Amino acid sequence: MNETEAHNRETETAVRAALYLFPVPLSATSKPADVLPEGNARLLKGIRHFIVENVRSARRFLKRVDPSTDINALTFTVLDEHTPRTEVDAMLAPLSEGFPIGVISEAGCPAVADPGADAVAVAQRKGFDVVPLVGPSSILMALMGSGFNGQSFAFNGYLPIETAKRTTRLKEMERRIQRERQTQIFIETPYRNNRLIAELCRSLPPNLLLCVASDITGDRQSIITRPLSAWSKATYNYDKTPTIFLLYS
Amino acid sequence: MNETEAHNRETETAVRAALYLFPVPLSATSKPADVLPEGNARLLKGIRHFIVENVRSARRFLKRVDPSTDINALTFTVLDEHTPRTEVDAMLAPLSEGFPIGVISEAGCPAVADPGADAVAVAQRKGFDVVPLVGPSSILMALMGSGFNGQSFAFNGYLPIETAKRTTRLKEMERRIQRERQTQIFIETPYRNNRLIAELCRSLPPNLLLCVASDITGDRQSIITRPLSAWSKATYNYDKTPTIFLLYS
Repeated sequence: MNETEAHNRETETAVRAALYLFPVPLSATSKPADVLPEGNARLLKGIRHFIVENVRSARRFLKRVDPSTDINALTFTVLDEHTPRTEVDAMLAPLSEGFPIGVISEAGCPAVADPGADAVAVAQRKGFDVVPLVGPSSILMALMGSGFNGQSFAFNGYLPIETAKRTTRLKEMERRIQRERQTQIFIETPYRNNRLIAELCRSLPPNLLLCVASDITGDRQSIITRPLSAWSKATYNYDKTPTIFLLYS
Repeated sequence: MNETEAHNRETETAVRAALYLFPVPLSATSKPADVLPEGNARLLKGIRHFIVENVRSARRFLKRVDPSTDINALTFTVLDEHTPRTEVDAMLAPLSEGFPIGVISEAGCPAVADPGADAVAVAQRKGFDVVPLVGPSSILMALMGSGFNGQSFAFNGYLPIETAKRTTRLKEMERRIQRERQTQIFIETPYRNNRLIAELCRSLPPNLLLCVASDITGDRQSIITRPLSAWSKATYNYDKTPTIFLLYS
C-alpha cells in the first residue's frame, strides 16, 4: 500500500482525530477475541500513526488482530521509559493535522502502568480528544477475582526494594486496610514472587487475607485468596509468572 | 427449551464449573461489540445459573448480547445491597453440583463497586474457581484518559457527605497526591456533579489538576483534564451524567 492508498484507507474509515488508547492481550496464549472487543480492531483499521512502547511487539499485536494489516504503511514512534519527555509534544503532530493516533503498550492497558500516560498528559494539555478503549487490565481483573473491597482500593506499583522503606510501606498498607477498609494492590519483579509471599507471611498479621492473581487470561490463570496463615503452609510456585498481589482483611 | 434441553446445551458447550464475572456495557448507547469481547458471549451461552444485581437489567443485557437467548431456561438469584450476607452461601450451590455460575451487575465490572464481591469472597473461601472477564470499567478508562499517574492510584468511592469529614478527606487526598504521587479517583451522586466541581475549585489549590471523565463509552463521552484554576472559569454541565473525578498535580 502506498502513501495515497494508506491515506484513502484512512479517510474511508473516517476515524476522527483523537488519541486512541488500545489495550493489548496480557498473555501470548490468550486469543484477541477473548480479551478485546471487535470494535477495537475496526478502529485500528482507520489509524496509520502509532505511539508504541516497543515497535516489535506493536507490529506483532497489529498482525495478530488483523493478519491482512500492511505494517509498512504505518508509522511507529517509540515512547518508553528512556524517551525524553521533551520529545512527546512532537509525537502528537498528526493530531494537529487532523489524523488519529493509536497508543499501544507492551501488554494490558496503555497509560495505566506505562509511559503512554505522558502522551495522554500532553494531549490533554493541548486540548486534543483522548479515547480509552476496553481491554484486559491485570490490576482490575485481579481485584474482581479477589473478593476484596472494590469500593475503595489502591494500586501501589512495586514495593520499595530497600528494607526499611519496604517495612514502612507494608505497615502503611496494613494501616490503610484496617482503618480505611482500602484494598491494597501491588506487584513484584516476577522472579521474586515466591520470596515476596514468604516475606508477607513473616511480616504481616496471619489473619490478613492475601490474594495472588497469576497469569491472568493465560493458560495457567490462577486467582487464590487465603489468610496469610494458610499461605505460609501452602505449596506454590509463581516465580517468573506475571502476578498481582492484593491484601485485605 | 425445557430442563433437559437446557442441560444439554450446558454440557454441549462444556463451560467448566467456576464463578464467571461478566462485565456489562456502561452506557445504553454503546454497542456490545464495541465494549465486550466476543468470547464473553460464547461463554454466556454455556451458563444457566446467574447471580445478578437486578433481574430486569440482567435479562435485558443477555437479550442484547444474544437475541436468541431463551431467558426462561435460566435461573436468576438477586444479590444486591439489601441481600443478607448469610444467603450468599446458598447461591453458590450450582458450583458444588458442577455447574458454572455467571455474575452480572447493573453496569461495568462486577465485584468492583457492587455487591458481586460478596459472592466472589464466598467462592474464594470455599475454594471454587473465580474467572473475571474483560469489559468496560469507568474507573480504569477514566484513569487511562486522564494522563495521571497510573503506577500509583486510589479509588475512594463516594466522598463523605458530612462537611467536616468531607473536608478532612479532601485534605487527605491532596496530601497523598503531593507526598505519594498517588492519583486520587472518586465519584459523586450524579445530580451533584456540578456542585462537586465548584467545591473542589473552592477548597483545593488552583494548580491541582482535575480530570472529569463523563459518559464513558456513551454518545457524549468527554474526558477533560485541566487545572482547578481553569475549571473555576469553565462552562460545563455534568449533572445527571455518570461521571468519574480524578485529582493529581
